[in-house]
Amino acid sequence: MFELVRYLKERASLVERSLAAAVPQSEGPSARLDEAMRYSLLDGGKRLRPILALASCEAVGGALDDALAFACALEMIHTYSLIHDDLPCMDDDDLRRGRPTNHKVYGEALATLAGDALLTDAFGVLARSPLARRAPALVAETVAELSEAAGSRGMVAGQVIDLLGEGRAMELGELEYLHGRKTGALFLAAVRGGARLGGASAAQMESLTVYAKALGLCFQVVDDLLDVEASTEQMGKRTGKDQAHGKNTYPGLLGLKRSREFANELSARAAGALSGFDERAEPLRALAGFVVERKL
Amino acid sequence: MFELVRYLKERASLVERSLAAAVPQSEGPSARLDEAMRYSLLDGGKRLRPILALASCEAVGGALDDALAFACALEMIHTYSLIHDDLPCMDDDDLRRGRPTNHKVYGEALATLAGDALLTDAFGVLARSPLARRAPALVAETVAELSEAAGSRGMVAGQVIDLLGEGRAMELGELEYLHGRKTGALFLAAVRGGARLGGASAAQMESLTVYAKALGLCFQVVDDLLDVEASTEQMGKRTGKDQAHGKNTYPGLLGLKRSREFANELSARAAGALSGFDERAEPLRALAGFVVERKL
Repeated sequence: MFELVRYLKERASLVERSLAAAVPQSEGPSARLDEAMRYSLLDGGKRLRPILALASCEAVGGALDDALAFACALEMIHTYSLIHDDLPCMDDDDLRRGRPTNHKVYGEALATLAGDALLTDAFGVLARSPLARRAPALVAETVAELSEAAGSRGMVAGQVIDLLGEGRAMELGELEYLHGRKTGALFLAAVRGGARLGGASAAQMESLTVYAKALGLCFQVVDDLLDVEASTEQMGKRTGKDQAHGKNTYPGLLGLKRSREFANELSARAAGALSGFDERAEPLRALAGFVVERKL
Repeated sequence: MFELVRYLKERASLVERSLAAAVPQSEGPSARLDEAMRYSLLDGGKRLRPILALASCEAVGGALDDALAFACALEMIHTYSLIHDDLPCMDDDDLRRGRPTNHKVYGEALATLAGDALLTDAFGVLARSPLARRAPALVAETVAELSEAAGSRGMVAGQVIDLLGEGRAMELGELEYLHGRKTGALFLAAVRGGARLGGASAAQMESLTVYAKALGLCFQVVDDLLDVEASTEQMGKRTGKDQAHGKNTYPGLLGLKRSREFANELSARAAGALSGFDERAEPLRALAGFVVERKL
């Protein structure tokens, strides 16, 4: 049996080391900016997006190193989005992964700028990766897809729809559209980007696209469930706030039982999409189970 | 004699059309985000950075089309930086280019997200440009340099130094370091990126680097001068506020007369760096004069 827990721990630690090198602490006039960036970036998150990218690269026979810079770029973009989402003008959160949010420590201005810098630097990390010399076309394509996933047609659009939709009841289709952008787009970019950099065939890209879409939505449904079911202490962030904020959620729309069933269906759909892959896709298969069973 | 005024007008209008196409107005759930992005992007700015990129591309014999996507990316990044700089937690400005700032119209949350989206989309516009298929290595290199110019070692660093330095007197060297990042880095990236995409030689890149550094600093010195000398009405943004905010400026450090002389020296240095270029560098030469003579 594949030992997922150990795998995740090892991969998270590899990603953590790479991130620390990608965003070094300088001395001098912008040391405080680096501190603010590293405070949120190097906080021992799950590193799910980078791990997915690396696993997808290896699932198609690519080398780990080919996707490592991209994996860092993904986590930098994910982290920027958390910093900005937590700002007073957005979700106004003061707790994230068990610690005070960035603006609580560094102030709003520096938190905004730390997010801006992480987002900007992410594209440089990807574009300066060793693979950019060997396969610049693959890297340029990945830059384009990452930008689309994170930008005005992807993650930011999801954030806007969420923001404007608060307090207004959504239908299931709308909620799926919202999450397809807010979290799904970056999951999809992670899997497809990792696979592309690993040399995936068109057929493999197609299967992994199905995998990633199901996995991303599953992740979000479970996120909504955990907000209802888990305690603030367990999660390291304030829970129970979706309902308080009038947010649209799967439990709110489908109920807890049906939401849990839906998450299980999505997990099975993700695993099913990998039927044509060999044992190198074992981590991706295990991740499909992990996402639905996770407690935080 | 080169007709700069007509040239700038024609080029600004070309850039404006390209920007409108690069950031289209969608219908549907994220229409409001597109509106906010386009409100600040399509407001008839000077388009100095994109014009510099296009002129540099042509100065080394490149085709206009090769740098057009890059030119748009530059202006999108410049615009995002203005939107975020104007936010209440930053400079708290309510007027920009003669109109209410983005957050005054769309609120802080949407303004933050519109900035995020412009920054993110900029890299996609560049990476999806037609040149990316023909010369992906040049495009990947330009993505890397643009990211570095705009990110934690460039523009954002400048913004942070400015923020943390308010109210504390800087020395001339510090002020130059600050502006080298805050405005200089993007000018440099514009000129070097345009030239690279136009197929510049190493020697041409070197001369254009000298040109861009002098031009960028000149632009900033004149900006400081205009903040003292011009009226709010002329500038379309609040003036006289540098002193009120305790900002470090060239007039504050060198006095008005010496600052004006310094700007003239820099303009001459920029023009001098072009001595080895033929008549295709005429627009760049004229721009070196324009930057120091501009009234807004």
